[in-house]
Amino acid sequence: MHEFRYRENQLFCESVGISEIVSKYKTPLYIYSKGTLIDHYQKLKKAFRRINPIILYSMKANSNLALCKILSKQGAGFDIVSGGELYKALKIGADPEKIVYAGVGKTEEEIESCIRNNILIFNVESLSELRLIDRIAGRLERIQRVAIRINPKIRPRTHRYILTSGTENKFGIDIETAEKIFLHRDEYRNLNLAGVHIHIGSQIIESWPFVRAIKKVVSFIKDLSLRGIEIKWFNIGGGLGIIYSKETPQTADEYAREVLPLVKGLNLKVILEPGRFIVGNAGILVTKILYIKETLNKNFLVVDAGMNDFIRPSLYGAYHSILPVISRPYSPKKKIKRFDVVGPVCESGDFFGLNRRFIEPKEGDLLAIMGAGAYGFSMSSNYNARPRPAEVLVDERRASLIRRRESYQDLIRNEL
Amino acid sequence: MHEFRYRENQLFCESVGISEIVSKYKTPLYIYSKGTLIDHYQKLKKAFRRINPIILYSMKANSNLALCKILSKQGAGFDIVSGGELYKALKIGADPEKIVYAGVGKTEEEIESCIRNNILIFNVESLSELRLIDRIAGRLERIQRVAIRINPKIRPRTHRYILTSGTENKFGIDIETAEKIFLHRDEYRNLNLAGVHIHIGSQIIESWPFVRAIKKVVSFIKDLSLRGIEIKWFNIGGGLGIIYSKETPQTADEYAREVLPLVKGLNLKVILEPGRFIVGNAGILVTKILYIKETLNKNFLVVDAGMNDFIRPSLYGAYHSILPVISRPYSPKKKIKRFDVVGPVCESGDFFGLNRRFIEPKEGDLLAIMGAGAYGFSMSSNYNARPRPAEVLVDERRASLIRRRESYQDLIRNEL
Repeated sequence: MHEFRYRENQLFCESVGISEIVSKYKTPLYIYSKGTLIDHYQKLKKAFRRINPIILYSMKANSNLALCKILSKQGAGFDIVSGGELYKALKIGADPEKIVYAGVGKTEEEIESCIRNNILIFNVESLSELRLIDRIAGRLERIQRVAIRINPKIRPRTHRYILTSGTENKFGIDIETAEKIFLHRDEYRNLNLAGVHIHIGSQIIESWPFVRAIKKVVSFIKDLSLRGIEIKWFNIGGGLGIIYSKETPQTADEYAREVLPLVKGLNLKVILEPGRFIVGNAGILVTKILYIKETLNKNFLVVDAGMNDFIRPSLYGAYHSILPVISRPYSPKKKIKRFDVVGPVCESGDFFGLNRRFIEPKEGDLLAIMGAGAYGFSMSSNYNARPRPAEVLVDERRASLIRRRESYQDLIRNEL
Repeated sequence: MHEFRYRENQLFCESVGISEIVSKYKTPLYIYSKGTLIDHYQKLKKAFRRINPIILYSMKANSNLALCKILSKQGAGFDIVSGGELYKALKIGADPEKIVYAGVGKTEEEIESCIRNNILIFNVESLSELRLIDRIAGRLERIQRVAIRINPKIRPRTHRYILTSGTENKFGIDIETAEKIFLHRDEYRNLNLAGVHIHIGSQIIESWPFVRAIKKVVSFIKDLSLRGIEIKWFNIGGGLGIIYSKETPQTADEYAREVLPLVKGLNLKVILEPGRFIVGNAGILVTKILYIKETLNKNFLVVDAGMNDFIRPSLYGAYHSILPVISRPYSPKKKIKRFDVVGPVCESGDFFGLNRRFIEPKEGDLLAIMGAGAYGFSMSSNYNARPRPAEVLVDERRASLIRRRESYQDLIRNEL
């Protein structure tokens, strides 16, 4: 569910018309719904209320400060993957006790900064990293809490670029090695090996991969317990799929119903790391049709957003629904034609949708690329020397700018 | 040819050791060779000297001001695709008479700004655009010079994302429609339809697609001439392939040898638009090995550059050679192993090379990702809240910073 809906024939975000927002802030423009953001977070929270998990918003999906602040106020912590995300989380006053740091390539500076800032836990991805965190913690005279990220070698069905579990994958540590680490935990004198972490991929719409992975790790945790090693934190990651097109992903309730029995009765603090699930459908990218180009073989709507603004269709072949902001109701007299929706960037990879049907589109019309809240702005670039779009947040009747559109001056700010 | 070579066992850029540059500017770091840049430009210029073409550097490949300035001083003009690129070209004092504006999605503001700044010519991609430029020129009381971009429907072998000719492609105008435009040129009262343009794709290593496309258009130009329509400008585009791995692309001389006879004796001013050819092998991305991760099925070198810094391997499946900055000579005692070279970004698409052979790599070693000058920094993003890398230019014995590394503050500069 999300709060981008038609009223009469115009697309609204909550109670504000998209056209009205665009007349002030121009296009291309990211627009987010505060209500949707909170609703998705609360759905997950309620579904898991029996075990009161720590819910960490995965900042990489969209780290706009205003959005993070809303989630922080709702009680969310943050799943970070870089020093930059730590900086942003601290900037909005996030509680370090609700920050978890993941990623295969943590630098020394980043590790040190996270230890100094007392974050909750590190998800550790390799033996080398484990030793490095131990060394740095020693130097800082701290005992650092860490979780071992286990690769459960479950392969959910998703795009290969966002699959993060399996045998040929840079993420996590195989379960045999993890066992050795826990058995020899005394070797790491400055670490408290208190947790295990899994994250099997992103945009996973079925529950079986989660169930299988969690079962595998729960049995691992029970084995450790029999040997006197108590795990306190079980981070079951994120990856919940959302509806982009005709997917029917599990709801938060369905997910909880499958997961809760698996972790019941274990004295574990469960951590969740949703990103896309919370913000994916809470944002859209609005763009204007610059040119309608009809050729002998194909028709194109050339819009003013480019792959630099939104790269998911190009990079992952992702499907995003594209809706007219002012809809023209169908009547038998009107022609429906198919168009590729493409951007102004000088390569054929610059498209948002192929062979999409539109009723008599006109140059100047606004289109909404739906489900653009996650991995939209966060992956944007200045390719073709294009300033990045502005971002607007809608809270019921109010639309406010939360990120200024970049200027040409911004493009050369750091050039000498 | 490029000036990144080993001296003894260390990789140098011109006369400066890469390690020395990195000790000052850190990693990840883009390093460019001024000599290579000029050499590539001059090779093309010399190959075509008989017809003294206008050579426009295609800024989208890499629009760093320092690099553009060097090329401008050599006499190059600029092939631009956006208002941002116009801004950058004018910033370095480029001669507007050597600026050509291409792209399927020119906005009204961009068109107006280019007309006001007296650029040489617009490459026009659709009928709608032609009418729009005509209207704007009228309003500004100017006669604007334009070229029709013809889609010659030749399909060179290259990645589908950088193919820009063919029947299902957003670029250019089919030759039949182009003919109609020229025959009815009086309809466009504020335009001087003085040119034709083709650009069939990028990283094309064979000459036959160029030859076929040019032949097709030359015969079109001759036809027009018989009907009393004289074309003055023939823009044959860019797209010359370079050596990333084992390609054997045509040299500038070979290319000229094929092309010159085709345009000889026609009273045409030829325009070339090289980008990658000039800057591709003039730049490298240097990165540090953070972790060596060996698993049961695969070994990884986790480096400190990510797909946000350099997206070509992920987006195009592009092959880039990866060399150790300090090479360890092979001896029978040393183990050669295969590794995936991957970055710290949290997705499996974040890789630079798969199954590459290295001789006893160590954590802390520097690696050079070769051929990263074109579509490297220009496509970089802040994904995973990672500040973008610095850029350094080497001129013989001197290395100078031409773009500062982004700071964490830069990440939130426009947030409110």
